[in-house]
Amino acid sequence: MTNKSLSDLTKLIEDELKEFNRLFKQSLKSNVALVDLVARYLLRQKSKKIRPLLVLLSSKICGGITERSYRGATMVELLHTATLVHDDVVDNAETRRTFPSINAVWKNKIAVLMGDYLLARGLMLSVNGGDFDFLQVITNTVKRMSEGELLQIGKTRRLNNDEATYYRIISDKTASLLSTCCEIGARAATSDGARVEALRDYGENLGVAFQIRDDILDYVGIKNLMGKPLGGDIKEKKLTLPLIYALRMAPKSEAKKIISLIRRGAKKVDVAEVVKFTEDYGGIQYADKMAHEYADRALKCLIIFEENEPRNALENLVSFIVERKN
Amino acid sequence: MTNKSLSDLTKLIEDELKEFNRLFKQSLKSNVALVDLVARYLLRQKSKKIRPLLVLLSSKICGGITERSYRGATMVELLHTATLVHDDVVDNAETRRTFPSINAVWKNKIAVLMGDYLLARGLMLSVNGGDFDFLQVITNTVKRMSEGELLQIGKTRRLNNDEATYYRIISDKTASLLSTCCEIGARAATSDGARVEALRDYGENLGVAFQIRDDILDYVGIKNLMGKPLGGDIKEKKLTLPLIYALRMAPKSEAKKIISLIRRGAKKVDVAEVVKFTEDYGGIQYADKMAHEYADRALKCLIIFEENEPRNALENLVSFIVERKN
Repeated sequence: MTNKSLSDLTKLIEDELKEFNRLFKQSLKSNVALVDLVARYLLRQKSKKIRPLLVLLSSKICGGITERSYRGATMVELLHTATLVHDDVVDNAETRRTFPSINAVWKNKIAVLMGDYLLARGLMLSVNGGDFDFLQVITNTVKRMSEGELLQIGKTRRLNNDEATYYRIISDKTASLLSTCCEIGARAATSDGARVEALRDYGENLGVAFQIRDDILDYVGIKNLMGKPLGGDIKEKKLTLPLIYALRMAPKSEAKKIISLIRRGAKKVDVAEVVKFTEDYGGIQYADKMAHEYADRALKCLIIFEENEPRNALENLVSFIVERKN
Repeated sequence: MTNKSLSDLTKLIEDELKEFNRLFKQSLKSNVALVDLVARYLLRQKSKKIRPLLVLLSSKICGGITERSYRGATMVELLHTATLVHDDVVDNAETRRTFPSINAVWKNKIAVLMGDYLLARGLMLSVNGGDFDFLQVITNTVKRMSEGELLQIGKTRRLNNDEATYYRIISDKTASLLSTCCEIGARAATSDGARVEALRDYGENLGVAFQIRDDILDYVGIKNLMGKPLGGDIKEKKLTLPLIYALRMAPKSEAKKIISLIRRGAKKVDVAEVVKFTEDYGGIQYADKMAHEYADRALKCLIIFEENEPRNALENLVSFIVERKN
C-alpha cells in the first residue's frame, strides 16, 4: 500500500470526472440571480470530489460507468455541498476550503436556504431520473447525517463522549454518506447483491477511517492547507477519539483537569496543553491505529472483486485517506 | 361565503385529523435524545394544520381518504415544520406560535440540523411508501420554496420589489406548498387528471391569497395572537404588496422619503409612519382587494366538483384564510 496523491487515483477516470464536472456545474444553474451568484462562488472552491470519485469507481468495478452513475455522482456531490454549507452555519465556521464560508460572506440566512436548495436539486436529479433505489438510500442517509451531528452536539454539551458513542456519531455523520456513494455507484452498474453489499461495507469502513484521520488532523495537521485551523474540535468542546482515549488512560485527576480546561470554552482553552496531554497519553497513536484498522477492514471488503485497475484505485484511495496530511 | 372558524371546517374530518396527529407524532420519534427533546417541543406548539387539512379534504372531494392521503398529509406537515424551523434561523425570529423559536432556545446550529432531519423524515415517508408521484411534486416544491426566499432576500437588499416580482416570490415560497398539498391529496384518491389539476390550481390561488393576507396582517394584525409582532416585514426591509402599491401611488418625493426611512433598518425605522403611509395611499385596501381576487379564483377552480360537504369545506377554508385576523 503506497501513498499516492489524489491525482494519481483520478487518472483512471479522468474523462468521466470531467463529464461529472460538467453535469455538476449544469445542475447548479438557477434563474434566481442570488442563487446563481452563490452557486458560482461554491464552484470556485476546489473540492477533493471524493464522493463522486467513489460513485464512479464503484460503478467501474461493477462493470462500467452508466448514465445512472453520473446522476448518482452529481446527486451525492450536491447533497455533500448542501451539508457543508449547513455545517458551516452549525459550526459558525469562517472559512471553507481556504475561502470565506457562505455564512461568513452572505450571513446564515442565505447559507440555510442555499443548503435547502442544493438538497432539493440533488434529490430532484434522482426523482426525475427515476432512480428510486437511490432515493431510498439517500433520504435515510440525510436523516442519519443530521442525527449524527445532533447526537454529537448533545454529547458535546456534557463533555461525556465515550468510544462507542464516538463511532456511532462518525458512522452516522460521515461514513453513512461515503457508504451510500459506493452503494449507489454499485447499483448503477450491477444488480448483484453481494457486490453492492461489499462496496457499501467498503464505504462505511473507509468513512470511519476518513473521519478518524480528520479528527487526528485537528490535533497534528498542517495548519491552513485546507483552510481549517487546528484545535477547532477542542475549542468547540468536541471530544474525538484521540482525546477520548487519552482521557481514559490518564490518571483521573489529570483527566479532570483537562476536562475543566476544555469547559472554559473557545477563547480561554489552552489548545497546546490539550494537544500535549493527548499525545502524552497515546491518544494520537491509538487513533492512528484505529484508522488503520478500519482501513484494513475496507480493503478486505474488496477481495471479492478481481484484481484490476478500479480495484487498485479503490485500494489506493484507502491509503490516501488514512495517510493524508490535510 | 360566511366567515367560519377553523374548528367548524375541521369537523367534517375530525377523526381523520386525529389519525393524522397520531402518525405525525409517531414520525417525529428518534432514538437520539436531543432530537426527541426538540421534536416534543415542536409538538407542543399548536399548528393550524392547514396543510394536512388541504391534503385530506382534497382526497375526500376526489373520492375518499386513503393510506396514501395520510402519508401525504404527514409528509407535508413534516416538510412545513422543517421550513418553519429553518425560516426562524433565516429571519432571526425569537418566537414562533407564541413559543420561543428553536433557534432562540437551542441556537441556530440545532435549528439547522433539526430542519434537515425533519425534511429527510418527511421524504422518507414517501420513499418508503412508494409514493414516487409525491416525490416528484414535493422535491420541486422544496426547490421553489428556497428559491422564492432567496429571490426575496435578493430584492430586499435593493428595496426594489415590484408587483410582478412580489407574486413570483409568494407563489414560490408559499403557494407552491399549498398547491402541492392539494395535488397530493387529489393524487392519493384519483387518477383523473382534470380533478388533480383543478385542485392544484385551487391550492395555488389559495396560497397567494393566504400570503397576501399574511402580509396585510403584518400591517394591521392583532399583535401577538399568534406570537408574531407587527411590522416585522418593514423592519426586515421586505417590501410586500401593501407597501409596493402605496409606493407606486404616492408622489415620488414621499415614496423616496419612506424608502430612506426603511433603509435605516430595524432599530431606527418608525414602523407607525410606514404603516400610516401605506394606509394613506390605499395599500392595505388594494392588497385586500387582490387577496379576495385570488380567493375568487380559488373558488372557481372548485366548480367542476359536485356540491357536497368536502367542497363546502374547501370553499369555507378560502373564506377563513382571506378573512382571518391572525
